[in-house]
Amino acid sequence: MTPQELKLIHAFFYPKTVAVIGASHTAGSVGYTVLENFVRKFKGNIYPINPNVSEILGKKCHKSIIDVKEKIDLAIICTPAQVVLKVFEECALKKIPAVIIVSAGFNEIGNTELTEKLEKLISKYKKTTRVIGPNCLGVLNTETKVDTLFLPEYRLARPELGSISFISQSGAIGSAVLDWASSEDYGMNKLISYGNALDLDETDLMEYLIQDPKTSVICLYLEGNKNGRKFFESLKKNSHKKPIIVLKGGRSKAGAKATQSHTASLAGSNEVFNALFKQTGLIEAKTFEELFNFARILSKIKIAPKGKRVQIITDGGGYGVLLADSIEETGLELAEMSANNIEIIRKQVPSYVQIKNPLDLAGDVTNERYKIAIEQALLDKNVDMLAVILLYQVPQLDSKIVEEVKALNNRKLKPLIAISIGGEFSKVHSKALEEAGVVNFLYPDEAAKALKALFEFHQYKKEHK
Amino acid sequence: MTPQELKLIHAFFYPKTVAVIGASHTAGSVGYTVLENFVRKFKGNIYPINPNVSEILGKKCHKSIIDVKEKIDLAIICTPAQVVLKVFEECALKKIPAVIIVSAGFNEIGNTELTEKLEKLISKYKKTTRVIGPNCLGVLNTETKVDTLFLPEYRLARPELGSISFISQSGAIGSAVLDWASSEDYGMNKLISYGNALDLDETDLMEYLIQDPKTSVICLYLEGNKNGRKFFESLKKNSHKKPIIVLKGGRSKAGAKATQSHTASLAGSNEVFNALFKQTGLIEAKTFEELFNFARILSKIKIAPKGKRVQIITDGGGYGVLLADSIEETGLELAEMSANNIEIIRKQVPSYVQIKNPLDLAGDVTNERYKIAIEQALLDKNVDMLAVILLYQVPQLDSKIVEEVKALNNRKLKPLIAISIGGEFSKVHSKALEEAGVVNFLYPDEAAKALKALFEFHQYKKEHK
Repeated sequence: MTPQELKLIHAFFYPKTVAVIGASHTAGSVGYTVLENFVRKFKGNIYPINPNVSEILGKKCHKSIIDVKEKIDLAIICTPAQVVLKVFEECALKKIPAVIIVSAGFNEIGNTELTEKLEKLISKYKKTTRVIGPNCLGVLNTETKVDTLFLPEYRLARPELGSISFISQSGAIGSAVLDWASSEDYGMNKLISYGNALDLDETDLMEYLIQDPKTSVICLYLEGNKNGRKFFESLKKNSHKKPIIVLKGGRSKAGAKATQSHTASLAGSNEVFNALFKQTGLIEAKTFEELFNFARILSKIKIAPKGKRVQIITDGGGYGVLLADSIEETGLELAEMSANNIEIIRKQVPSYVQIKNPLDLAGDVTNERYKIAIEQALLDKNVDMLAVILLYQVPQLDSKIVEEVKALNNRKLKPLIAISIGGEFSKVHSKALEEAGVVNFLYPDEAAKALKALFEFHQYKKEHK
Repeated sequence: MTPQELKLIHAFFYPKTVAVIGASHTAGSVGYTVLENFVRKFKGNIYPINPNVSEILGKKCHKSIIDVKEKIDLAIICTPAQVVLKVFEECALKKIPAVIIVSAGFNEIGNTELTEKLEKLISKYKKTTRVIGPNCLGVLNTETKVDTLFLPEYRLARPELGSISFISQSGAIGSAVLDWASSEDYGMNKLISYGNALDLDETDLMEYLIQDPKTSVICLYLEGNKNGRKFFESLKKNSHKKPIIVLKGGRSKAGAKATQSHTASLAGSNEVFNALFKQTGLIEAKTFEELFNFARILSKIKIAPKGKRVQIITDGGGYGVLLADSIEETGLELAEMSANNIEIIRKQVPSYVQIKNPLDLAGDVTNERYKIAIEQALLDKNVDMLAVILLYQVPQLDSKIVEEVKALNNRKLKPLIAISIGGEFSKVHSKALEEAGVVNFLYPDEAAKALKALFEFHQYKKEHK
């Protein structure tokens, strides 16, 4: 991607001036909701465009984008499909670098003629104007408050600023992800729902995010690629630079058939995608939960694990057993701590503490006992990653454990995660740890899979420097 | 199990009088917490036993259980290990039917001699006194408020009354499950942590729950069986009567090794357990999440699906695609609605609605459109189960959808579940639906697996009547 192209795409996310074409004063309509998002949150200049209205939400309305004197960085088209050609060409003539066409009514409903006309027009002006859409939700940037999502915030909450960015072929999935992320306090950076992709597709957007300093992890929901070769070549060049996690819809026969009526994309055979995952370092999430968990661990843990040996430290035997099962099942290994460190621990804990792997600190565990065990595991050359199970139901664990685990984690010696399950008392502590930078999981199996993703990304990165 | 045996075990859960042996006035101690649980919540007579104290928590203290005149149904022993033999024999001589030995310090720490002595003593009085423990949390009955869990409620919340019962070989897992269940509003009936199982083991407890009218689903966390043959024979006789869901710890080599130091049980080879799952209709949960999800669907949906054909109804194409993938991956099938019903729907919805499977009602879906589609699917002879995806982010869906789905579900024509993901707005509606008896899931994969468990249980039941 050329610097000029990147500069155009940059305008989608960091505009100084925006125009909403098809802005409306009918509350609840697309043209109203999009404008209202900008008026409420965006710091730059905002121009509503509507030939029949003089003012909306306190902003002077222009009859056409041509009438706006100021240079516009981003235009959002919310008009009916039949006027899109006309208003798009006006945007292009005004050399607006970024245009989001929210309007539906193109190839997704079989309107081939109109689609081809639009495609040609987009091609004509491609050097100075780039397009996301049509038939899309567009863009959310939690930093600059660009927000073209035409769904009201009481139904679709916007997440806090974070470093995870998400590209979605499906608008519904994009918005559900945002909404869920915000309720779980997962920060996000940019969301792009790119719809029919008549111009910019998943590869272009991914390449922009690869060089975007605000994005640490890229997530993709994909049903298929229009241009698989382009996607593949880009991944080979880029997937060691940042974690790229893909949730693929249409893996099964039944699912693939469904994608045809959904995004009108050929789902691409499983074999092709499996080869992609193998050859490019793309990280596959098989479920939504994995997508969230992989994104969290990869955005928060910056230390590369040296190998795949995990030390489990626990206060509940059963949860330790389940985690050991999951670690072996994912292909990671249980670490064997060195005799020297085992001895150091043994001198400071009761005789019934099992200094093995899992290291079971027992139900009468104290903060001090956790501290001793975690510290030695962090220092042990035979340990690559730490999985610390904290079941807060036990009677002697003190709330200060949060500070202690945080301090140990802040020494940044090794990747360390926490695993806890329980009610309010548990949740309060897990949340505090998460906010202190320690990634938390509810279940042993999801923790093991996340550690595996962390290990594999860094392994691939090391091999492809 | 004989009626006499069942009657003895019944006393663990439905006692009229209880004694806490080793009751203490030291807040935070086991003997205090157990007594306090009873004093605060239990309606029957309560006798604290402690030779050195005259009164605890306003209750007169007896020096020994022998001194109590009244008949005692349940005794909980919280004394140090070395006095357990003595106080247990006193309980047995008083013909107390149910004794829970909470005290630790037996075979789990290698104290074989004391363990063998206790085992002999238990054997001697087995006809009139049965034992849970030692080294256990004991019993929680959310109905009668028997609660021997010595962990305070602010750390370990107790769930509401429900019909799911849980037998756990691991105390920590038992308590974490309770705590989590209570925070997620999953009702439970009985929890039993049976520790070293010197007398009653998982099979005995399971057989009690099989005939217990208050328990609709039995969950087990197991690392191994002392008596695998007994477990197997019991399952063959019983597993068609009620769903029995097992989460097995120690499936992997690493995990199996860990169970040896944890519950001192041989984990049993995977092959043996796999055969068990195949031959007995036992339902395997591979993860905690599956355990909870299978328990929810099997306790709430009472209608047997006639086959394995699922109709998906959705307002988000992508989520429908992912669910279609998961349904095929679990071995269920996508239904094909009859032409007649498709025609009835087609006449009432816009032309862009895809009346296939997934049936995609589109982003401008209304309550009415859902109602039409769900109703026809419920009436269709080619549909066995319904999976209704409700993404509440879309602008035109009204809150009354809850009432409408509830009313359709209440016609009890077919198993119906809902799938939703999102923030507060979503959660409010999902919760309302769940309370109205419609089981809700967050993710497509977990919904598909739960439907599979429902189908398989009823299939097994039909074949083994």
